[in-house]
Amino acid sequence: MKNLISDNASVLIIGNEILSGRTIDKNFNHIASKLNEHGISISESRIISDNEQEIINAINELRNKYKYVFTTGGIGPTHDDVTAESVSKAFKVKLEINKEAYKVLEDYYIELGSEFNDVRQRMARIPAGASLIKNDISAAPGFNIENVYVFAGIPKVMRSMLEEALKTIDKKDKVINFTVQVDAPEGEIAKILEKTIEKNTNVSIGSYPFYNTKDDYGVKIEISSLNKDSLNMAINDLKVYLSKESINYS
Amino acid sequence: MKNLISDNASVLIIGNEILSGRTIDKNFNHIASKLNEHGISISESRIISDNEQEIINAINELRNKYKYVFTTGGIGPTHDDVTAESVSKAFKVKLEINKEAYKVLEDYYIELGSEFNDVRQRMARIPAGASLIKNDISAAPGFNIENVYVFAGIPKVMRSMLEEALKTIDKKDKVINFTVQVDAPEGEIAKILEKTIEKNTNVSIGSYPFYNTKDDYGVKIEISSLNKDSLNMAINDLKVYLSKESINYS
Repeated sequence: MKNLISDNASVLIIGNEILSGRTIDKNFNHIASKLNEHGISISESRIISDNEQEIINAINELRNKYKYVFTTGGIGPTHDDVTAESVSKAFKVKLEINKEAYKVLEDYYIELGSEFNDVRQRMARIPAGASLIKNDISAAPGFNIENVYVFAGIPKVMRSMLEEALKTIDKKDKVINFTVQVDAPEGEIAKILEKTIEKNTNVSIGSYPFYNTKDDYGVKIEISSLNKDSLNMAINDLKVYLSKESINYS
Repeated sequence: MKNLISDNASVLIIGNEILSGRTIDKNFNHIASKLNEHGISISESRIISDNEQEIINAINELRNKYKYVFTTGGIGPTHDDVTAESVSKAFKVKLEINKEAYKVLEDYYIELGSEFNDVRQRMARIPAGASLIKNDISAAPGFNIENVYVFAGIPKVMRSMLEEALKTIDKKDKVINFTVQVDAPEGEIAKILEKTIEKNTNVSIGSYPFYNTKDDYGVKIEISSLNKDSLNMAINDLKVYLSKESINYS
């Protein structure tokens, strides 16, 4: 399948709890949808453990390969939060107490009436040269260094940081999609899809079979394009071909 | 965090529909839970597009790095199903019509009263030397070549193939887990966790904050071990430390 957009990205999900299956990741799909609206397509995503060397390797590989890298997880105050340290090592910069982050955290804990203890102060450690990403929920900021955006793992906090980060990234044309659902198995429409693809070079077509029961199955055909006219032409061709073969669609 | 088990694996999710955010992946968490029960831990997972070269690169990298690789998606009959072809190229073996797969598919479509046309016959193409993985739902088999297991992307079909594949893989001791939920923010228990970890070297401890509302937040502490006595000792230590600081837990 064609990749329609030029601004590509990678999402790096950091956390043993996701890898072990104990926690279901709720961040990837949200990030993918939001980036897509913003005109950024995800080319690759990885889930890795809270391991410094693994994080360093993945960050360095992905930031050289893609225009943007978005990470989630590992920026809290405990022993298994090693993302900030790993990112600073990947960029070979110091991890230092960021004055702005320190102030934000100090104010937050004072207002909360909680102690701003040394483990909480760890969350003010930010790689040198990075800019902070505001956290509207629980103060401790994410950060952006070059093309890497580092978010928290808690979904609510991550969403707040993603919104903030997207304000700083130029919005591109987004891909528009249309889905045609067909009441036939993939094996009966594969040639129709090929014909539609041959004739419509400005669209990308995906074929996604679903199977609920022996009587409830079919295919969702996703047509995507940056151009509305191209999209409509492809949808029309597909429907004409389906009708010719007496295949029902909706 | 420590990695407790020796048999590691990687999961490779293949599909543009997942990367674009249009479809939510339902396979990864299921595979992770099932493998964990089987004594296999996932060290890394990737989501990549239906692109031949990307699949070849990922397969070759992951199969050399991990004991097992499990893939989902891209083995249907349409133009964007390129997994079987890519895996055969990764292993530098021919992709050929597998007689057993051909027979299974032919019988299935005869019984269904559907035509076993040439696009459906594509699903009988299996890399030379691979063994088939039975598909109880829709006939078209997955396959296993060396340490790589290739499953369908449809969750129901994938689950059936995973069950079949696990029958052929020796079961190892599984990791046992226990969760303590604490009504305090991470910043107040980080030191307690460090003390618990120092004293208990045969367990792995993860700290997972959650945040629902300003009044409903806390931390889930996951203690894992291969040994029940080690697990219980760590749980006991943790509870003693929490009680000493008057921190509520459940």
